[in-house]
Amino acid sequence: MANTAITVARGDGIGPEIMDATLGILEGAGARLDIEEIEIGEKVYLAGNPAGVAPEAFDSLRRTKVFLKAPITTPQGGGYKSLNVTVRKTFGLYANVRPCVSYHPFVETKHPVMDVVIVRENEEDVYGGIEYRQTAQVTQCLKLISRPGTEKIVRYAFEYARANSRKKVTCFTKDNIMKITDGLFHKIFDEIAPEYPDIENEHWIVDIGSAKLADAPENFDVLVLPNLYGDVLSDVAAQIAGSVGLAGSANIGEHIAMFEAIHGSAPRRAGQNLANPSGLFLGAVMMLVHIGQTDVAERAHNAWLRTMEDGIHTYDIFKEGVSKEKVGTREFAEAVVARMGQRPETLKAVTYKSGEADASGASGGASPEGRASGAGAASKKETVGVDVYLDWAGGSADELGSKVSGLSGDGLKLTSIANRGVKVYPEGATETFCSDHWRCRFVAESGREVGHKQIAALLSRFAEDGLDFIKTENLCDFDGKPGYSHAQE
Amino acid sequence: MANTAITVARGDGIGPEIMDATLGILEGAGARLDIEEIEIGEKVYLAGNPAGVAPEAFDSLRRTKVFLKAPITTPQGGGYKSLNVTVRKTFGLYANVRPCVSYHPFVETKHPVMDVVIVRENEEDVYGGIEYRQTAQVTQCLKLISRPGTEKIVRYAFEYARANSRKKVTCFTKDNIMKITDGLFHKIFDEIAPEYPDIENEHWIVDIGSAKLADAPENFDVLVLPNLYGDVLSDVAAQIAGSVGLAGSANIGEHIAMFEAIHGSAPRRAGQNLANPSGLFLGAVMMLVHIGQTDVAERAHNAWLRTMEDGIHTYDIFKEGVSKEKVGTREFAEAVVARMGQRPETLKAVTYKSGEADASGASGGASPEGRASGAGAASKKETVGVDVYLDWAGGSADELGSKVSGLSGDGLKLTSIANRGVKVYPEGATETFCSDHWRCRFVAESGREVGHKQIAALLSRFAEDGLDFIKTENLCDFDGKPGYSHAQE
Repeated sequence: MANTAITVARGDGIGPEIMDATLGILEGAGARLDIEEIEIGEKVYLAGNPAGVAPEAFDSLRRTKVFLKAPITTPQGGGYKSLNVTVRKTFGLYANVRPCVSYHPFVETKHPVMDVVIVRENEEDVYGGIEYRQTAQVTQCLKLISRPGTEKIVRYAFEYARANSRKKVTCFTKDNIMKITDGLFHKIFDEIAPEYPDIENEHWIVDIGSAKLADAPENFDVLVLPNLYGDVLSDVAAQIAGSVGLAGSANIGEHIAMFEAIHGSAPRRAGQNLANPSGLFLGAVMMLVHIGQTDVAERAHNAWLRTMEDGIHTYDIFKEGVSKEKVGTREFAEAVVARMGQRPETLKAVTYKSGEADASGASGGASPEGRASGAGAASKKETVGVDVYLDWAGGSADELGSKVSGLSGDGLKLTSIANRGVKVYPEGATETFCSDHWRCRFVAESGREVGHKQIAALLSRFAEDGLDFIKTENLCDFDGKPGYSHAQE
Repeated sequence: MANTAITVARGDGIGPEIMDATLGILEGAGARLDIEEIEIGEKVYLAGNPAGVAPEAFDSLRRTKVFLKAPITTPQGGGYKSLNVTVRKTFGLYANVRPCVSYHPFVETKHPVMDVVIVRENEEDVYGGIEYRQTAQVTQCLKLISRPGTEKIVRYAFEYARANSRKKVTCFTKDNIMKITDGLFHKIFDEIAPEYPDIENEHWIVDIGSAKLADAPENFDVLVLPNLYGDVLSDVAAQIAGSVGLAGSANIGEHIAMFEAIHGSAPRRAGQNLANPSGLFLGAVMMLVHIGQTDVAERAHNAWLRTMEDGIHTYDIFKEGVSKEKVGTREFAEAVVARMGQRPETLKAVTYKSGEADASGASGGASPEGRASGAGAASKKETVGVDVYLDWAGGSADELGSKVSGLSGDGLKLTSIANRGVKVYPEGATETFCSDHWRCRFVAESGREVGHKQIAALLSRFAEDGLDFIKTENLCDFDGKPGYSHAQE
């Protein structure tokens, strides 16, 4: 079988030695790889590349489409951008995949039965970092959830589950509160799940679901989560599994995929043959599955599991009475290589399906056509009103109400004013605290459609009155149903 | 000492019997209360009150300002509003306080040493439920964080810590990503913490902090959290403490405070003298501290702890070998009353400071003056540009760029276009997936201030070109510093 080209970066700190160990194990397992090496990290930052990666290095990534990356050190001081964010944003790495596994009784954990994979949406939610401060008192961040973004991640989770012989995919959202954004995520989960009748599916509200996950992770298998919940819960899951130092992760895009350890470069441990290469190695196993070398992945992963249960442990997990031999980075890798062909006896052996795993894992299952069809799910849109937000500290809600009522006209009329999501005019409760951030809702008189010229003209009237409008949000119906929330009364 | 008037609602399901038991214990402890009873819940919903509480009942709350509430049942079917949300929004209950305590070895838990209090901001963040769908593909929720809202909750957390003899307050945010919103929360935490030199303070990024909390809660004391993180982590903490059925909570406002159990009305257990009244009882203990009856609170709470460790348990926590006697709701309450004056021997006894606890706990420490000063922290604001968001599916970023560039003029010029927070024009990466939700950033030519008439005129030009602008966000500098984020490149 032909070799697969991959791009490798040895990184900083303990990076080079754990990469050597990892590549040594892959070689011992018979991996068919052509390695292109690129430089990333501290030296590259200090040479004047603000993202820690030279533009030429991107050419290698574009060519091989597979990136095995050791941890890096970002120099102290400002002005340096996150390398991972740059790669993720540039190449649209929409899925972060993180297996969180307990290795009881060989590694200490309060949760002996745990084998969870968190599939985290990686591009949307509040992580666009789209923020505004627009009044003295109030700051705002936009949370965006899109149909194509959600379709990609949900489909990827089910394809991953199938390729990795998993039984169940669980979704968490807060759609009892965020009916439109989290509601969309949940709805798409419910749309796609039936296409995978071989895989069980369930949904929990994120607060209750998180409590269950933290207390009884043995009840979960694959989880698919919006970005923020995924960020928090993938750290929680890795931590309670007791295996942060042993965990790898994958970042999957339509064009390129990146594999790494979840830990950092640990400069103080560097060059001492101390570091545990397991996190990067388990990232590399995900890479092997991704590129279709499932036979190699299975052999290497099972040899590693056997090494763990034989008690051959690096210092970080060595425990008197449990471990048998304390070894260095190199010796650990040699011990894994020596066990090629062996399988664990106490821990569960892994099995990777050949063939299918590749395509589905690699593409994420969301073809461009798939996305187009998602987009096509829309529907007739009508603009039926506009929310105009004001920076105003001039008095009470009623005073603002009578002032702004006067701006109705030209087919638009003021229906309500809200403050931080609570209706305060007309007929607000006197106890409601009001910030300087007010939302004035205008809708079409007699329910007709609103034109963009009417909205621009309304804003002109606000401007003439000297009112500081700070933002607007159109109110749209989709297929006759309102695409906006109402203020809480 | 004079009695304190409180409002009591007996609720639905197990509500009446656990309220009887709770009031019985309070009476046995010598609580000085005048009880006004109101009706809430199922019957009130079905009588046509959409929030499950009659308007007259609010008068009692406004009078007593203290509400001890049993769980209720919300009828099946749509159109019913959450009673808790209504009370919280109407009266501005800005703080949710939830102690999460392990009662090892008397109640099973993986975390034997745990005594954490979560103080959750209760009004802001994504819980305003301010949402918009504005394109075929993209939905949006606004996350709002305000200075006065954050000052109130942070100050409350420190005052609570002081009144309850706590040693440390910890804050979690994600301000490495959300520099403006979560950044404000963190900044205000750092501003207020030094006013409490007797109390330790620390901040963690929410992902790492959550992992620590879920794995080693013994390292935390009081936590103060923005709404969403608080929602998720208060459920996680209650669950891992093993005491969801035993937990009470307080919702604190400037005018009114509400105390309850965190569990529901469990209709299937109703009327059988089975239910554990401890959650509501521990909510009532918080109420006693709130109204300054700290002597009664301490006596009742210690008698309850003694009952727990004497193994007098209701069915829900009864465990062969640990428990001594399985009792019903009434008998449990009697057992607590019989132990008045006794203190626990294995579990830690509680101590409530007299006097101070009241004022600080009750007012939350954030006086109207305090809030005004917060508002005063602003600063010179200048509008320097505007982001115009478009619903557009007409082609590539470059095509949109040349189209929209033509709308520059009148002192405003297009500087960039972004899609889901990533810059795509000029000079975007070809791999970046673009949704139909585009942000066009216009800034003043030669860095002058932008007038609202210019913004309205710009929108008129968009309208004339037939472009569907769906939202705008002004770009403002505060004291010369940008109050908005830049697109990720």
